[in-house]
Amino acid sequence: MKFEFEPIAIVHSPFKEKFGVPRQPGLVPQARGRVEFLPRFASAEAVAGLPGYSHIWIQFLFDRTQHEGWQPSVRPPRLGGNRRVGVFASRSPYRPNPIGLSVVRLERVVTDGSGVVLEISGLDLVDGTPVLDIKPYIGFVDSIPDATSGYAVVRPDALLQVHFSPLALGQLAARQDGELLLQMIRRLLETDPRPAYIQEDRQDRVYGFRLYDFDLRWRVGVGCVEVLELVQSPHRSAER
Amino acid sequence: MKFEFEPIAIVHSPFKEKFGVPRQPGLVPQARGRVEFLPRFASAEAVAGLPGYSHIWIQFLFDRTQHEGWQPSVRPPRLGGNRRVGVFASRSPYRPNPIGLSVVRLERVVTDGSGVVLEISGLDLVDGTPVLDIKPYIGFVDSIPDATSGYAVVRPDALLQVHFSPLALGQLAARQDGELLLQMIRRLLETDPRPAYIQEDRQDRVYGFRLYDFDLRWRVGVGCVEVLELVQSPHRSAER
Repeated sequence: MKFEFEPIAIVHSPFKEKFGVPRQPGLVPQARGRVEFLPRFASAEAVAGLPGYSHIWIQFLFDRTQHEGWQPSVRPPRLGGNRRVGVFASRSPYRPNPIGLSVVRLERVVTDGSGVVLEISGLDLVDGTPVLDIKPYIGFVDSIPDATSGYAVVRPDALLQVHFSPLALGQLAARQDGELLLQMIRRLLETDPRPAYIQEDRQDRVYGFRLYDFDLRWRVGVGCVEVLELVQSPHRSAER
Repeated sequence: MKFEFEPIAIVHSPFKEKFGVPRQPGLVPQARGRVEFLPRFASAEAVAGLPGYSHIWIQFLFDRTQHEGWQPSVRPPRLGGNRRVGVFASRSPYRPNPIGLSVVRLERVVTDGSGVVLEISGLDLVDGTPVLDIKPYIGFVDSIPDATSGYAVVRPDALLQVHFSPLALGQLAARQDGELLLQMIRRLLETDPRPAYIQEDRQDRVYGFRLYDFDLRWRVGVGCVEVLELVQSPHRSAER
């Protein structure tokens, strides 16, 4: 028994690769993106009533990792990366059916002549992610504040200090979106985006990932991260 | 671009048909069911750590209605059934990709020699529903108590009084699970399970739906429901 699904929309995101994507939705509220419906599903009628909701569920395909298949147990980064748990006790992408689930803030619904777009924030999705379904977040059903979880909340005292080099500060100052971007980069790096298995003492190594139209270069010190530089990326994206 | 998914598990539920299923999860906490993993996915390793969670997400296929396709707008019963909203502003089953999303309470994880079963409660799923994925409910990500919704909460003053006939009370008294079942039937009927378009003044009509191993017969009066009888169903299910 097999079921066939097709994408209804595509995510446009500042996160251009898997490395650097926030580990959960809502963690980086400055992160803004768009859900653009494919022509067949771009109907103003199909999103009528959606602006009444502050949040939406995005059910999407883990398209970057789906070819790698699934594993019965995984090592979630939030558990330090060295404790294994069952795949069904995790939100890992390596699942039998690689369907992701993410709640994001709905900023605006745009239904002009050229298509249907949902402007969202707080997303944790890679640019180009295929969307399978959009549903409203219904608080009195979906919100269970007293649910117990095996996972730990981010502890504020475990956050890294984020410093910016004079070069990086100058580059940010020269951008229209510099102030917002500075806050966003701070939120992105203070939780240490590196996989747990390489979070050792390698203070020389410079890491990088693509964000918007640049490569963000940074390195890790003791309890802190230093942002070195924003390098204009040769693979310039069409996204702002 | 198409994606193929296959079921990983099957839902065993007291609700044997679409009519009578609670309109949202959590509404009838007395409703208990089971998620039984298919042999290929029945691995104790794959559910390790899950007992640490009080709630889980079930992503499932709307298999009863999937052949009917999708519509750009629907009339949700919770909005009185006469206001249309876009399908993406609803949790309707008539979606481009008929994937359902439901949070239920996880009562117990059973991993004995004969398979892997999740015992759940508060479910709103039809017996036999194919499951595509199970994920832990992570409160600090999934719970957004201040999210705004277009839907209205059930108003306690809109609930119907539920009365039981002497015959129905006698039939319940003769059952092991009679007390729990009485509470469950009250919760099921007080929100009026009938589609809004037939919620007119038809006080003679007797309605029925299959629950566990019987047909529940009831009729609606002014502001109340009368439970008439539990009729042993000829299509007796293997479920308890």
